[in-house]
Amino acid sequence: MEIEDHKHVHIVEGGSVTTPRGFRAGGLHCGIKKITRNDLGAIVCEVPAEAAAVFTTNVFQAAPLMITKESLAAGGKLQAMIANSGNANACTGQQGEDDARSMRAAAAKAWGLPEHYVGVTSTGVIGELLPMDNLLSGIEKLPEAVSDEGGASFNEAILTTDLVEKTICVRVDIDGVPVHIAGAAKGSGMIHPNMATMLGFMTTDAHIGASELQQLLGQATDASFNMITVDGDTSTNDMVVAMASGMAEHKPLNAQHPQWSDYAAAFLHVAQHLAKAIARDGEGATKLIEVTVSGAVSQEAARAIVKTIIGSSLVKTAIFGADANWGRIIACVGRAGQPVNPDTVDIRLGDIRTLEQSRPVRFDEEQAEEYLKSDTIQIHVGLHMGDGAATGWGCDLTYEYVRINAAYRT
Amino acid sequence: MEIEDHKHVHIVEGGSVTTPRGFRAGGLHCGIKKITRNDLGAIVCEVPAEAAAVFTTNVFQAAPLMITKESLAAGGKLQAMIANSGNANACTGQQGEDDARSMRAAAAKAWGLPEHYVGVTSTGVIGELLPMDNLLSGIEKLPEAVSDEGGASFNEAILTTDLVEKTICVRVDIDGVPVHIAGAAKGSGMIHPNMATMLGFMTTDAHIGASELQQLLGQATDASFNMITVDGDTSTNDMVVAMASGMAEHKPLNAQHPQWSDYAAAFLHVAQHLAKAIARDGEGATKLIEVTVSGAVSQEAARAIVKTIIGSSLVKTAIFGADANWGRIIACVGRAGQPVNPDTVDIRLGDIRTLEQSRPVRFDEEQAEEYLKSDTIQIHVGLHMGDGAATGWGCDLTYEYVRINAAYRT
Repeated sequence: MEIEDHKHVHIVEGGSVTTPRGFRAGGLHCGIKKITRNDLGAIVCEVPAEAAAVFTTNVFQAAPLMITKESLAAGGKLQAMIANSGNANACTGQQGEDDARSMRAAAAKAWGLPEHYVGVTSTGVIGELLPMDNLLSGIEKLPEAVSDEGGASFNEAILTTDLVEKTICVRVDIDGVPVHIAGAAKGSGMIHPNMATMLGFMTTDAHIGASELQQLLGQATDASFNMITVDGDTSTNDMVVAMASGMAEHKPLNAQHPQWSDYAAAFLHVAQHLAKAIARDGEGATKLIEVTVSGAVSQEAARAIVKTIIGSSLVKTAIFGADANWGRIIACVGRAGQPVNPDTVDIRLGDIRTLEQSRPVRFDEEQAEEYLKSDTIQIHVGLHMGDGAATGWGCDLTYEYVRINAAYRT
Repeated sequence: MEIEDHKHVHIVEGGSVTTPRGFRAGGLHCGIKKITRNDLGAIVCEVPAEAAAVFTTNVFQAAPLMITKESLAAGGKLQAMIANSGNANACTGQQGEDDARSMRAAAAKAWGLPEHYVGVTSTGVIGELLPMDNLLSGIEKLPEAVSDEGGASFNEAILTTDLVEKTICVRVDIDGVPVHIAGAAKGSGMIHPNMATMLGFMTTDAHIGASELQQLLGQATDASFNMITVDGDTSTNDMVVAMASGMAEHKPLNAQHPQWSDYAAAFLHVAQHLAKAIARDGEGATKLIEVTVSGAVSQEAARAIVKTIIGSSLVKTAIFGADANWGRIIACVGRAGQPVNPDTVDIRLGDIRTLEQSRPVRFDEEQAEEYLKSDTIQIHVGLHMGDGAATGWGCDLTYEYVRINAAYRT
């Protein structure tokens, strides 16, 4: 695979979150889920890793997010990140907070770490208490399940019924030293309707401080995880965490380092790869939709318009039906609440021009339908007002989405 | 039928937009639609009616909206309102504007009126020019099609494939004189995917000035048409127009009139009835969803939270599946961008309490499923923060919605 414009960034085929030096991972089945699939996992670092995280903006943040924030606030380092699936420990009150704290304490004990070097995260049903017996005895056994080869086993532990694993590893040479950045994510491809949580885990062996890592993660999230939508809903448990072992022996990475932009590009590539994989594996999705808006008055305006388009049920169903229905796209552009000149809008579907300077262009419907049957659909909107540009990703809206989400919880 | 709390307001069974004194209406097939159903209609008043209108906030306002605004700006009166279905005359540039102007001129000639007493509106395909030969010869014949009994014929002319007609008439006695308010609307129950336009027409024989009518229409729209969502998309052609003949011989209605609030309640009832009818007849809908938020910090906050809930695909599919999935509702409350105390939220589905003070309440799942199979589902959210309250309406998200909207335009 090629990464455009960044000749220093290379994909590591078969890489996982354990590829960066210092990281091990793994998972096991502790009994939160009824089916025998991993439902508990960990990523562990040989040393206290510089750490950064971004959290859901939902007012109802689940208990594990609060506890992980506490750990990070104590010194910006994490050595173990514990994740369970099957139960989100959200809307569970004081008992939920106590349980998340017990989960952290058990993991700290299992690895002999200070508690504030441990982060925890959960995904699954909202409003039910964690089955603590299963969870705590699982955590006791977790160190045995963790190894250099445990990346896939960890990936399984965070998935629910996502159809595909979402993982990537890239290499970038900094000061002539190979540096790795890897990621694993879960998205919303779940039968169980409350499980629509996005979780992302990034590991790197770069020599980088927590504040630089936080800066990179924030920037990358704005152009990746925050630019995807499956159905516009934001979970109570969404979280992305990045850990840097510092075991690659290059000069410390910061904005003054001559290869800062190479590392930032590699970091963004990992985040965008995971984000796109989540969108493509959205509930019931058959296609990835990539929307680019350019010429907006600002980047914020471009982002808002992108999100309106990728969030539109009418656009999503049209793409499912391979219908070149640009009228629905322009209706989104017009209702996004951003400055738009109604006389200067261009719309392209892939290379097919459908609107230029707000006037319909005759196009070959059959050719358009053929294009819209592709695996990835690109929508380009040009506004000719300024330099603001943004890209985002979503998926089509299908019968299968309705089937999955109309299913009973029980 | 009863109208709660307003003993002065009575439903007029079998009433239509022609029930208020002074109004006639009708429709005919002029050939914009291929099938032989009315596609052109008019409401005409004996006298220049005091008029008010609200328009889509979409940046891409269709040409007929601009022309109708011009007419209203000339003096706040309308004597004829012309509507066609099958073609929206939107995104059609200068030619579209010229066509809308010709449509108005033809109607003015047909009834012998000044052009600024005529309003025009269109719904249908975006981006195609109106078939002017058909339309203009249709308008020539329109006066013959208009009569005291033409309400139903007009209703047909504005529908596309809405499953049911949406019309209502109420009576309120002002100064002892019977005053009527009637309405007709089209919503989004359309096979043809670009036709998702909301149009509303209200007639009344009240003696009321244009500015008072505009004030009432604005207030009523905020609590009716602006509080419904089928799929979150806002059309380029949405418009509600109200016309008052003034032929009921009571004292002029304004805020000083002792029965102003009776009239306002009746006016709101008509607008809410039409809005709910549009929501219930949303594309593919099987149920009406009514969401009420109370205890918000402000009415604006309550409205924003209501809209987030009724717009959520996850909530809509859960209701379709009769799944008491309150976790999706609280996730909406948390992501609506409004002040919420995460510890004091109540959620009820009908009379079934599922969350109290943000703690899950055990409820009978079978009873909840039974309730969620009803024709109308009520969701109540209490925030315990202030006095802000609002109600809105939507519908479930079904396989049929996807089928309708994934269909090819051609």
